[in-house]
Amino acid sequence: MPEYAVPTPKRRRGRPRGGESGARERIIAAAVEEFGELGYDGATMRGIAARAGVDAALLHHYFGTKADLFAETVGAPMRPDVDIPTLLEGPADDLGERIVRYVLEAWERPETRKRGVLLLRAGIGNRLATPLLSEFLQRELFTRIAARLDTPDAALRAALAASQIAGLLNARHVLQLPALTAASVDELVARVGPTVHRYLSD
Amino acid sequence: MPEYAVPTPKRRRGRPRGGESGARERIIAAAVEEFGELGYDGATMRGIAARAGVDAALLHHYFGTKADLFAETVGAPMRPDVDIPTLLEGPADDLGERIVRYVLEAWERPETRKRGVLLLRAGIGNRLATPLLSEFLQRELFTRIAARLDTPDAALRAALAASQIAGLLNARHVLQLPALTAASVDELVARVGPTVHRYLSD
Repeated sequence: MPEYAVPTPKRRRGRPRGGESGARERIIAAAVEEFGELGYDGATMRGIAARAGVDAALLHHYFGTKADLFAETVGAPMRPDVDIPTLLEGPADDLGERIVRYVLEAWERPETRKRGVLLLRAGIGNRLATPLLSEFLQRELFTRIAARLDTPDAALRAALAASQIAGLLNARHVLQLPALTAASVDELVARVGPTVHRYLSD
Repeated sequence: MPEYAVPTPKRRRGRPRGGESGARERIIAAAVEEFGELGYDGATMRGIAARAGVDAALLHHYFGTKADLFAETVGAPMRPDVDIPTLLEGPADDLGERIVRYVLEAWERPETRKRGVLLLRAGIGNRLATPLLSEFLQRELFTRIAARLDTPDAALRAALAASQIAGLLNARHVLQLPALTAASVDELVARVGPTVHRYLSD
């Protein structure tokens, strides 16, 4: 398997530890409020810091970017916004296969799958969570993919690829369609990889 | 557009009318209970008739098959289980395009879209609705598609096609990703049709 098939997980930013855990809880609670009220695009690190009563620089130091804090807040089990742009840097000829393998293999890990299913269910099923997920994907994932694809229809290409990957995760792990739960990762990569490849680069 | 692009909607079975509307409501309530308790596969028309206190033959007369009654009970805005097998009978060379067009055009109608979004949200987001949707699709749609495809991997092919179509509907109508809401039906058929085609018949 090529070395970029599964990117090394990024080290989590430092968190307040020990006696500071109260600060961490306040920050996460503040982030839930801010994201919930203002959406992903409207929320700011400054606003979250103010709600939590902490310094904005400290917030960045502990939690990184807004995307990092959002991922932490919703308990995201993987970071497609970080990892998929990295995958796009590898060779073009098996790009689709590489992305599909990265996602499917991550979801083979029970903890990733459990949290992933929860987020997928909420993102589709919950009227408040849907725009948050949509804005996050748009801002942090599709824009980056589109910048790398560098074609006029790049945003559409990225969205179509995402529609297939999310559809596959839903069908295999939420609906658990028997034919998809029975298939191996390799088989699914062989079938779905070319789809994602075609959307992104044909 | 070829004549089978959008199948003529099947005439709804007769319903109890006027003074019999109480019977109709009792039957739907009984169906909700039976499907909810026993799942799609476990529910029977006989069981629903018994719960509603009506004759089983009468139930079939008014509501048709179990699939018909299920569709009526959940307020299904379209009948892929009836229409997609019909689409499979047309010429093989634009099968994928035809199926994608049929679904996307149906969802352009506001009433279909509204109910479709509701069902999609519930099917993914609601722990009780998910297995019902999954069993219905498996029993009434995939099995029929697989029978027509007549290849050993037919069930996997049908499930992959469904994963892309449902993923597209989710991305366009639930998440409302801007690149997908901006795209025309024709453009999406041109991009996604070949995917569904490849899954079903390559």
